[in-house]
Amino acid sequence: MNRVVKITGIGSYIPEKIATNESFGSHRFLNEDGSAIEAPNAVIIEKFKAITGIQERRYLEENLVNSDIAFLAAQKAIADARINPETIDYIIVAHNYGDVKYGTVQSDTVPSLASRVKHLLQIENPHCVAYDMLFGCPGWLESVIHSNAFIQAGIAKTCLVIGSETLSRVIDAHDRDSMIYSDGAGAVILQQVEGKGGIIAFETATYTKDEAHFIYFDTSNAKEQKDNTRYIKMYGRKVYNFALTNVPLAMKSCLEKSGVDIKDIKKIFIHQANEKMDEAICQRFYKLYDMEMPKEIMPMSIGELGNSSVATIPTLLDLVLQKKLGSHSINPGEYAIFASVGAGMNINAMVYQF
Amino acid sequence: MNRVVKITGIGSYIPEKIATNESFGSHRFLNEDGSAIEAPNAVIIEKFKAITGIQERRYLEENLVNSDIAFLAAQKAIADARINPETIDYIIVAHNYGDVKYGTVQSDTVPSLASRVKHLLQIENPHCVAYDMLFGCPGWLESVIHSNAFIQAGIAKTCLVIGSETLSRVIDAHDRDSMIYSDGAGAVILQQVEGKGGIIAFETATYTKDEAHFIYFDTSNAKEQKDNTRYIKMYGRKVYNFALTNVPLAMKSCLEKSGVDIKDIKKIFIHQANEKMDEAICQRFYKLYDMEMPKEIMPMSIGELGNSSVATIPTLLDLVLQKKLGSHSINPGEYAIFASVGAGMNINAMVYQF
Repeated sequence: MNRVVKITGIGSYIPEKIATNESFGSHRFLNEDGSAIEAPNAVIIEKFKAITGIQERRYLEENLVNSDIAFLAAQKAIADARINPETIDYIIVAHNYGDVKYGTVQSDTVPSLASRVKHLLQIENPHCVAYDMLFGCPGWLESVIHSNAFIQAGIAKTCLVIGSETLSRVIDAHDRDSMIYSDGAGAVILQQVEGKGGIIAFETATYTKDEAHFIYFDTSNAKEQKDNTRYIKMYGRKVYNFALTNVPLAMKSCLEKSGVDIKDIKKIFIHQANEKMDEAICQRFYKLYDMEMPKEIMPMSIGELGNSSVATIPTLLDLVLQKKLGSHSINPGEYAIFASVGAGMNINAMVYQF
Repeated sequence: MNRVVKITGIGSYIPEKIATNESFGSHRFLNEDGSAIEAPNAVIIEKFKAITGIQERRYLEENLVNSDIAFLAAQKAIADARINPETIDYIIVAHNYGDVKYGTVQSDTVPSLASRVKHLLQIENPHCVAYDMLFGCPGWLESVIHSNAFIQAGIAKTCLVIGSETLSRVIDAHDRDSMIYSDGAGAVILQQVEGKGGIIAFETATYTKDEAHFIYFDTSNAKEQKDNTRYIKMYGRKVYNFALTNVPLAMKSCLEKSGVDIKDIKKIFIHQANEKMDEAICQRFYKLYDMEMPKEIMPMSIGELGNSSVATIPTLLDLVLQKKLGSHSINPGEYAIFASVGAGMNINAMVYQF
């Protein structure tokens, strides 16, 4: 039997507060240059929904911050794995904006969110090393790849990997893209186990020559706002084209490394960035193999949960494993591809056997 | 011959702008509770200097941000290693506050600073993976440990590891501790090479039960300041006691793992947190071996450069390797211990043969 790295526990935290598309009805949406958008809000919102598939999203309760929900997701993953938390070697928290208190504009990252989570988990073992990873939306999957490397290098056996983000705290109310973003947290326990499967292959790429600032931080579209506060911003069209060109190739490269036949792939867990974009990526991936995209291959949670950055894949996986996402399921022995794309611009993919 | 991991290039960026202790002469220093400090500034500053050894520190030019100096240090390290930058497998930037533009209060971390550095270096290879690491002041040394793991796991051969910080952008002018903090950047190229030495052993610990919030983010000591802006803050006495208790033990544990005799240690490169604290740590470390601390064992740059967080060790090492720090030198074949302590609270140590 080989030593393999497997997900042995999972948990997530999905905020209860629902922000519907209708809740944006009275927003004053503006173009990047500050000019008015020549359409009523109902039309803007309908078009947004047609492109992104998002009907509603979740916002964190005002009294909580990002590290609180990272902790709540972690607690569930630990319980699910039935491990003693004192045996965890690494706690890795992937995020992008730290803890932003409701109604404030500063990101709090000292101490790291991983240290805060470890504190809340009351883990005492000093050899449980806690750090944060910034890698755009692909940060959670990249932290899984870190854990795999630590286990392969012989310096860890058990890792807690969390993706947690509160994008509701960094959005510009005058930007249509603000409707994309959401809050959430997902966590897994990764362990070195005897057996087969687990992480079979992975692939990571960082594109920065022209792409580094496709997703960025800038002032409001409301130019009269003179306080210099900056918000999450993106060149949506450029991100779309970039993802469509590069993500299918990364997935193919990863699948080839794994030696797994594409016909054996049961599910694709893709970062929930934008429904139409995700579908187009997946279709193009299958086209590389002269295949039609199989029905039910790609579970989606974006319609109800929006884009919660690093949290979308682990929260999606948790829903599927709990059989809470329609008829979607994944069973022991079955293969899946994980893939994400985001700020950096970063792309990663992983072939995994459950 | 074994495969070993060695530093093959180094570079740093030390800002030219000097802030002397005298420049704090007209500050209105307050206690944490907002009350006045019962001493003239000259006395406060003299006492500060006696404890920390800091006479002056460096502040970044107003037109630059953290990722700019991370890039400048990286450029020098690449030139020093004489490598083709396209061969770099990982760019890891350790920092804690991201890019904070002069005169603003927000940390900009999207895209990651590593992506910005890669962009500025004009590296095109998408398989050069760029990410940021948040781990308090020990972040640079921990990123070295990451690189070692990636090389041991067979997923990297060449890594660029940068520590870069602009603490001048997050300090409270009404807090005496603001005199500690400084700006700077240091970078190394780590490579898998044939030979002996390099990274021999390392040790990392994260203490969060009581210690997680010893270094934190909070509003100004000037309580009339009502804008909610938060700054770097610490419980200095607690940090001091924590470091003095735990850092010598981590160094000893690491040295034991390495199998190197303490008498063969030629230099200790310790995070430049506070001169008296660093000396006390080092003395206590030697006391664990019933030895006096050898003269000239511990190069110090804090007197002139202050505490630039993740940047202190690589900038210090660069000064020593360039023979720009008094009579300090380290030669091929000689052993050194690296050690750091900081927010988290995190501690790490490494035994390295040059």
